[in-house]
Amino acid sequence: MSHQNFEGLDVESIRAEFPILEREFDGQQVVYLDNAATTQTPDPVVDAMSEYYRRHNANVHRGIHHLSQEASERYEGAHDRVAEFVNADGREEIIFTKNTTEGENLIAYAWGLNELEAGDRVVLTEMEHHASLVTWQQIAKQTGAEVEYIRVDDTGRLDMDHARELIDDDAAIVSAVHVSNTLGTVNPVSELTDLAHEHDALSFIDGAQAVPNRPVDVSEIDADFYAFSGHKMAGPTGIGVLYGKRDLLEEMEPYLYGGGMIRKVTFEDSTWGDLPWKFEPGTPPIAEAVGLEAAIDWLEGIGMERIQAHEEELAAYAYDRLEAEGDVEIYGPEGGPDRGGLVSFNLEGVHAHDLTSIMNDHTVAVRAGDHCTQPLHDKLGVPASTRASFYVYNTREEIDELVAALDDARQLFA
Amino acid sequence: MSHQNFEGLDVESIRAEFPILEREFDGQQVVYLDNAATTQTPDPVVDAMSEYYRRHNANVHRGIHHLSQEASERYEGAHDRVAEFVNADGREEIIFTKNTTEGENLIAYAWGLNELEAGDRVVLTEMEHHASLVTWQQIAKQTGAEVEYIRVDDTGRLDMDHARELIDDDAAIVSAVHVSNTLGTVNPVSELTDLAHEHDALSFIDGAQAVPNRPVDVSEIDADFYAFSGHKMAGPTGIGVLYGKRDLLEEMEPYLYGGGMIRKVTFEDSTWGDLPWKFEPGTPPIAEAVGLEAAIDWLEGIGMERIQAHEEELAAYAYDRLEAEGDVEIYGPEGGPDRGGLVSFNLEGVHAHDLTSIMNDHTVAVRAGDHCTQPLHDKLGVPASTRASFYVYNTREEIDELVAALDDARQLFA
Repeated sequence: MSHQNFEGLDVESIRAEFPILEREFDGQQVVYLDNAATTQTPDPVVDAMSEYYRRHNANVHRGIHHLSQEASERYEGAHDRVAEFVNADGREEIIFTKNTTEGENLIAYAWGLNELEAGDRVVLTEMEHHASLVTWQQIAKQTGAEVEYIRVDDTGRLDMDHARELIDDDAAIVSAVHVSNTLGTVNPVSELTDLAHEHDALSFIDGAQAVPNRPVDVSEIDADFYAFSGHKMAGPTGIGVLYGKRDLLEEMEPYLYGGGMIRKVTFEDSTWGDLPWKFEPGTPPIAEAVGLEAAIDWLEGIGMERIQAHEEELAAYAYDRLEAEGDVEIYGPEGGPDRGGLVSFNLEGVHAHDLTSIMNDHTVAVRAGDHCTQPLHDKLGVPASTRASFYVYNTREEIDELVAALDDARQLFA
Repeated sequence: MSHQNFEGLDVESIRAEFPILEREFDGQQVVYLDNAATTQTPDPVVDAMSEYYRRHNANVHRGIHHLSQEASERYEGAHDRVAEFVNADGREEIIFTKNTTEGENLIAYAWGLNELEAGDRVVLTEMEHHASLVTWQQIAKQTGAEVEYIRVDDTGRLDMDHARELIDDDAAIVSAVHVSNTLGTVNPVSELTDLAHEHDALSFIDGAQAVPNRPVDVSEIDADFYAFSGHKMAGPTGIGVLYGKRDLLEEMEPYLYGGGMIRKVTFEDSTWGDLPWKFEPGTPPIAEAVGLEAAIDWLEGIGMERIQAHEEELAAYAYDRLEAEGDVEIYGPEGGPDRGGLVSFNLEGVHAHDLTSIMNDHTVAVRAGDHCTQPLHDKLGVPASTRASFYVYNTREEIDELVAALDDARQLFA
C-alpha cells in the first residue's frame, strides 16, 4: 500500500512503528479506523514500558533504595511532562486516574456530592459521553440538583443561545466534551467556560477526543477541570489524566482513601497529603505513567499541529467521499475546523452492526453502536451508527477501502 | 552469586527471567527485598503485554472487528483465569480495579455508604493497611457508623477473644488483612469470616500480601469480598482485583458511572449492565489484564505451594538471623505458618530511615517507614520500621547480605 503524505507527515515511516498495522486477516491487511475507541501504540512506547519493568521497576512514594528512587523520579516526572504538554501550572494540577471516566467521577464525587444541592443546575450537552452524562445524572439524583442539556442543532453543533439560557446563576457546573466522539464536533469550550465563570459556575471539559489529536492548552481554555486518557493518544491502557486548578483541588476532599494520600493517620481520624498525591491512593499506574510520557514524546516528535491538520484532512476527505455516495447519512458538521478526526454515519436500509460486519469482512475496522451516547442517538432517531475514526498513521487509501465496502453492503441488503 | 534451592525450586533459572535483578549500583548487584511494596516482573509477563500491544490491541466491549474481538476475548478470558486462580464462581465475581485500594473503596462506597447507619459497627484490626483503615473511617464518619479495631497481642497476632467481643449483632462488616504487610502475621480469615456470618455481618479480606505468596481459595474462606493487586504478584501496575459474591454484587449499586457499565441511558435516567462490567466503567486496564493472566500462568508454572514454602523458609531464616543479633527488635510472630514472607524490624539506636539508607549503600533494597500502618506503629511505639520482604527469586545469601549491613549501621551510629 502506498501512502500519501499530508502536511509533511511521513506516514510510511510512522506506520513502521506500529507492527499491528501489518496484521492480516484472510490475507487482507487490517485497515484500522477505530481510533476514537483506542489508538494503536508505537514501538517506542511499548519499549519504554518494557525497559521500565526490566531495569527500573519499584514502588514509588520516595522509597530510599536506588530502584525506588528511580521509579519515583520517573513517576513524578511523568506528571511534570503531562503538565507541560497541556500547559498546566505544575505537577500539583495533574492527577493520574485509570481513565477519563474516573476523572469525571472523581470531580462528581469529591466536588459534586459535597457541593451540589437542590436548586443547583448541572449543565451538560446533548452530545455528552456516558462518562459524564450518567455520572452527573446519578450525582444530581443524590443531591437534588437538576441536570439540563444544551441542545445540539441540525448541523451537529451546540445551540449557544440555549447554552446562554441554561448557564445562569443557578448553574453550578458545566460539563462538556471538547470534541464529540460521535458527531466529531469541536465545541467552543473556551466560550462555555467563560459563560460558566460569568455565573460563578465551574467548567469540566472531557478532552478524551481532543488531547490526542490537537494542541490543547488548559490554561488558555481556562477550564477548571479537564480529563483525558492515555490509550487514545498512542499511550497505554490503565492510565488517564485529570487536570484541575490547584486552588480547587486543594479545597476539595479526597474521594478515594488509602496509602500514599495521607499525612497523619490515627485509629480515630486522618489528614491528607499534598497535591497531586491526595487524589492518588494506593499503588498508582507507574509503568503506565512511563508509557504515557513516552507517548507524549512521540506525539511531540511529530508535532500536534501536524497531527491535527492530518486528521482534519482525512475527516474532510471521508466526509466528502461518503456524502457523494448519496445514500449515506452523516452526523455532525461538514469537514473543516469544526470537525475532529472522525465520521459517524449510516447507510440507508442497513443496520450499523451489519454494515460494520461487512466492513470487517474487508478487514476495515470501524465501530458500530451508540458510542456511549445513547440519548444523542435517540435524538438522531437511530439505534446506532458506524464510526470511522482516524489517527496519524491513517491514509486516504484506507478511507477509499471503507467507501468501497459500501457496495457489498448494498448488494447484500438491497 | 550461588543460590540454594528450597523445596525443589530452581531459583537460578527463575532469576534469569528477571533482568532487573542483575542491576548493579556502584559495582554491587542489587539485593531486592522490597517485594511487599512491589514484586519484580518476569520476562514472560512483560513480553505478553508487548505482544498484546504489537499484535492484538483494540478496545473491548465486543466490537465487531477482528482486533476488538481478539482484545475482548483476551480481556474477558483474563477474568475467567483469575476466577479459576482464586476459586471464585465465574467471571461475574471478578472485577478489575486499578489496585487493592480501589477494591476497598468500591465496597465502602457501593455497599457501605448506602447500607451503613448509626449504631452499625465496622470491625477492623489494629494491623489494617491504610487502604482499609482510612477508607472505612471516612465512610463511617459519613454514615454515623462506628469503627472498632480488633487488638493485636504482644506476639503480633489478633486477640480472637476481642474479635468475638466486637463481632456481635451490631457488626455490619469485618475488614481484615489476610497477611499483615508490617507484622507478617497470617490472620485466621476463615474464622473471622465465620464470626461475621454468625452475626449477619459481611467480611472483606485484603489479600494484597496473600494471593501473591500462597494458594488462596476465596470459596473456602467464604469471604464476601476479597481484594488484591497485580503488581505484587509478578504482574503489572495499573490493575487490581476485587472478588465479590455474585448475589451481593448484583444487589449493589455501582459506584463509578460511565460507558460499558450501562444497559439503557436516556437524558433522564440510566439502568445498569451485567456483572462484572457494572463495576468497570470506561476503558478498563486491558493490556494489564493480559499481563495479569501471564503472571498467573507464570506463578502456577512454579506452583503456589512451593512459592509459599520458599517464602516461609526465607522468613524463618531472616527472623532467626536477625534475632541472633541481640540488638534487633522484630515485630510479629516468629517464623512458621503464622508468618508470611516478610520481616519488619528496628536496630537499637538507629532510625529505620538511616538503617535503610545504609542498607542501600550495600545495594540491599528494603523499605523504611510506617508501611501504611501508622496507627500500628504508634502502638508499637516506633515512628517507623525497616521491612525486608521476600519473593520466589530471593535467597538465603541475600538475607546474609542484609544482616552483614547491620554492622556498618552500628559503627556509624555507635
